[in-house]
Amino acid sequence: MPLDRGKVFAHIDKNLPQHIAKLQELVRQPSISPENKGVRECANLILQYLTDLGCKGGLEETAGNPVVYARYDAGAEKTIVVYMMYDTMPVDEPGWRVDPLAGTLTDVPPFGRCLVARGAVNTKGELRGFLNACESIKATRQKLPVNLIFVVEGEEELGSRHLPEFVTKHEKELQEAEAVLFPFCSEDRTGKVVMYLGVKGIVYFELELDGATWGKGPKEFGIHGSNKAWVDSPAWRMIQALSTMTGPDGNKVTIQDFYRHAQVPTKEDRELLPKLEKTFNDAAVREEMKVDRFIGDAHGIEALKKYLFDPTLNINGIVSGYTGPETKTLLPHKIAVKMDVRLVPNMRKDDVMPMIRNHLDAYGFKDVQIRVVESGYGWSRTSYQSPPAQAVIKSYKELGKDPELWPTIAGSAPFALFNRKPINLPVVIGGLGHGALQHSPNEYIVIDEKGPTGGLASMEKSFVTILDNFGKMAS
Amino acid sequence: MPLDRGKVFAHIDKNLPQHIAKLQELVRQPSISPENKGVRECANLILQYLTDLGCKGGLEETAGNPVVYARYDAGAEKTIVVYMMYDTMPVDEPGWRVDPLAGTLTDVPPFGRCLVARGAVNTKGELRGFLNACESIKATRQKLPVNLIFVVEGEEELGSRHLPEFVTKHEKELQEAEAVLFPFCSEDRTGKVVMYLGVKGIVYFELELDGATWGKGPKEFGIHGSNKAWVDSPAWRMIQALSTMTGPDGNKVTIQDFYRHAQVPTKEDRELLPKLEKTFNDAAVREEMKVDRFIGDAHGIEALKKYLFDPTLNINGIVSGYTGPETKTLLPHKIAVKMDVRLVPNMRKDDVMPMIRNHLDAYGFKDVQIRVVESGYGWSRTSYQSPPAQAVIKSYKELGKDPELWPTIAGSAPFALFNRKPINLPVVIGGLGHGALQHSPNEYIVIDEKGPTGGLASMEKSFVTILDNFGKMAS
Repeated sequence: MPLDRGKVFAHIDKNLPQHIAKLQELVRQPSISPENKGVRECANLILQYLTDLGCKGGLEETAGNPVVYARYDAGAEKTIVVYMMYDTMPVDEPGWRVDPLAGTLTDVPPFGRCLVARGAVNTKGELRGFLNACESIKATRQKLPVNLIFVVEGEEELGSRHLPEFVTKHEKELQEAEAVLFPFCSEDRTGKVVMYLGVKGIVYFELELDGATWGKGPKEFGIHGSNKAWVDSPAWRMIQALSTMTGPDGNKVTIQDFYRHAQVPTKEDRELLPKLEKTFNDAAVREEMKVDRFIGDAHGIEALKKYLFDPTLNINGIVSGYTGPETKTLLPHKIAVKMDVRLVPNMRKDDVMPMIRNHLDAYGFKDVQIRVVESGYGWSRTSYQSPPAQAVIKSYKELGKDPELWPTIAGSAPFALFNRKPINLPVVIGGLGHGALQHSPNEYIVIDEKGPTGGLASMEKSFVTILDNFGKMAS
Repeated sequence: MPLDRGKVFAHIDKNLPQHIAKLQELVRQPSISPENKGVRECANLILQYLTDLGCKGGLEETAGNPVVYARYDAGAEKTIVVYMMYDTMPVDEPGWRVDPLAGTLTDVPPFGRCLVARGAVNTKGELRGFLNACESIKATRQKLPVNLIFVVEGEEELGSRHLPEFVTKHEKELQEAEAVLFPFCSEDRTGKVVMYLGVKGIVYFELELDGATWGKGPKEFGIHGSNKAWVDSPAWRMIQALSTMTGPDGNKVTIQDFYRHAQVPTKEDRELLPKLEKTFNDAAVREEMKVDRFIGDAHGIEALKKYLFDPTLNINGIVSGYTGPETKTLLPHKIAVKMDVRLVPNMRKDDVMPMIRNHLDAYGFKDVQIRVVESGYGWSRTSYQSPPAQAVIKSYKELGKDPELWPTIAGSAPFALFNRKPINLPVVIGGLGHGALQHSPNEYIVIDEKGPTGGLASMEKSFVTILDNFGKMAS
């Protein structure tokens, strides 16, 4: 029996108020993993959702937050892993126009009604929308087109620290699947669908130097700045160490072998670029980020190539000494720099930290300490020609959208755990709808269909369509 | 009539409880100039003290806090400017064992009873101790040996911003004096008297870079760190700019002409060093600062030469981007670095900022902004052979102390305003007693005479002796 999508779509349209209420319920349950606030309560709520859908599963304990792990047996031929997250960032930024945990519906021009809340689009909206879609198929007395393995983690905002142990434990079961789906609103603010076929990897670390580990400079506290005349400065030393790591423009990384393994653009990347060039709007991207010029004043596809294919060494933050108002003369005893490296194919994250260590040692900075804060993610790539990617592309087209295919996004996610050895599954990111301001005040997801983008109903219908096409794809 | 010091000393000993109470009263009046807290109330209190002593004067308004300006006419041949300050640093550091504004007397081993309070030694203790000494001379029905011009400023902790305008206005009157005295507890914690014959100058400034002024990088807010691939980083750019300003050790300043005008050690410096070498204890200094090694592993006089004679380029603080716990990926839109240059003879503070601007421009960093936070102080030097310095040295010897003569301290003070053109007066820093932890929690001044150092009575007696010897010195 083929799925009658029309019946499901009608059910979604008719029951939209209840579906919206379900989204509100979920964002009202805090699950702020960096502050360990409401996390387990939210895990239990997700488990209840999955049990209500008809899944079998439970909370899988890890050394950190539990993974909600549940299977839905549709008696179908194919099985899909649905990777989702139930945790969010904190809500303490200034600038929220509404209570970030209240589940407020409010008009956001030009989109119409939006849900403005922490987690709205990152990613409780998609999570609950996906479940609404599954429930709607069942409510029309039809079978789900594929079996589902739900992996819903609670530490994505902490770098998915304990997901590797979970994946290793369930390697065999996960390998039974055809693909991994990450439900995600893929429309930009104009309604254009952007489909990311990969992510870059990341390693996050701190460089630290203090007088105690160095053996020079103040050991225990900052001292009067006039002592610079006879006491070494950890801050100056770190500046000198950092400066050896890039060229004068701060862009070219001068760490030996840093670029050696980078093998992008690939043949497939080069196939995708000409089409992408036609629709990519660099001015709109710069306007959104409030950036006047890209590196080297690059435009269009030349800028995009940097974004897609360049590995980076970034300074996320740096702090030392007195940073308050007015003046204080101080010779600080320590300095700390938060940094990360983004990895492209075929860079290996386990190679990066030794490279940086060797670089610092070679330049005489053995005393600069490296502390890896997050072991990080590998890069992930899925071919647009793979059956699951084609199923998603087909779904968009059936819904009247021609997706812009990006070989990768420059951000990172734990997809490599599923995408690369030993699981080796295609990972596809998909779904209509729009939201933005992830990690920022007034995070929103569009509910109405009045603006340039799809709302909640469009999102849910896209998930129904994608599941249907997964069921029909070649193995 | 020569001064009968014995009578005055007996009066001090007899009235010590009331003298202590006067110190307590003064530290209980907040005068925190960086927070503008209690400043004018304190100025009025100082004026009351001076009026009570018999001075004529008032509050001299400036664009900032008033200078208490008053003259005591003793009918004496000689006139001395007494430079003092009535403002203090804030009290908000963690770690205070007592209320910093309560005027608490408490035992501090090995010194015996101390006054533990903000301003105790920096410098309300000396201010009030000096007035107690003057009052004690008068109480014994004797004449003060010199006329006094009191200049008590309320912005020392803000870099004496408006003292230059005051000095310019009163140039003629100040030039009538023989010398400037800064009353200051000059015993270290062992009771050794250290006499500083000068200060280094200072210019305090911030280097700043943001995407808006640069024309590259994020202009308005930090953006997701993955954008480093195509967006320039102000933080990396600043690191590269800073790194050109010193050698790899962070000590040698590579700004053109930075050392060109430095003319130390002078002939007199070279005369003072051999004697200083005999008593200078570098291990004790390092222990106090919690520093294992001086620059280049220098010891003894070699280390001290750096301290006394090297101009410096210091990083007081640096901040950019995310500096909180855990991780956040961010491409920061701005970076700020608080820096200062310490000047030795014959460096000119007005030369320094153009040198730094030229350096940055020459290295291609025209976009790095320089903001001078404080126009700063010049260096100051007074010959140990000058009559006022000899009068202070003689006073110490009469009181049983052999002072260690330092050509300068590496810190800075507004003495150049009096010491150099057009006023050209010798500036002497003097007084017995001990205190420490200026700008830190639990700042104290020693009250008792039970420990290795002098207490309040010793301090007051030293001021009496110094005034007496000023009266007798050659013009």
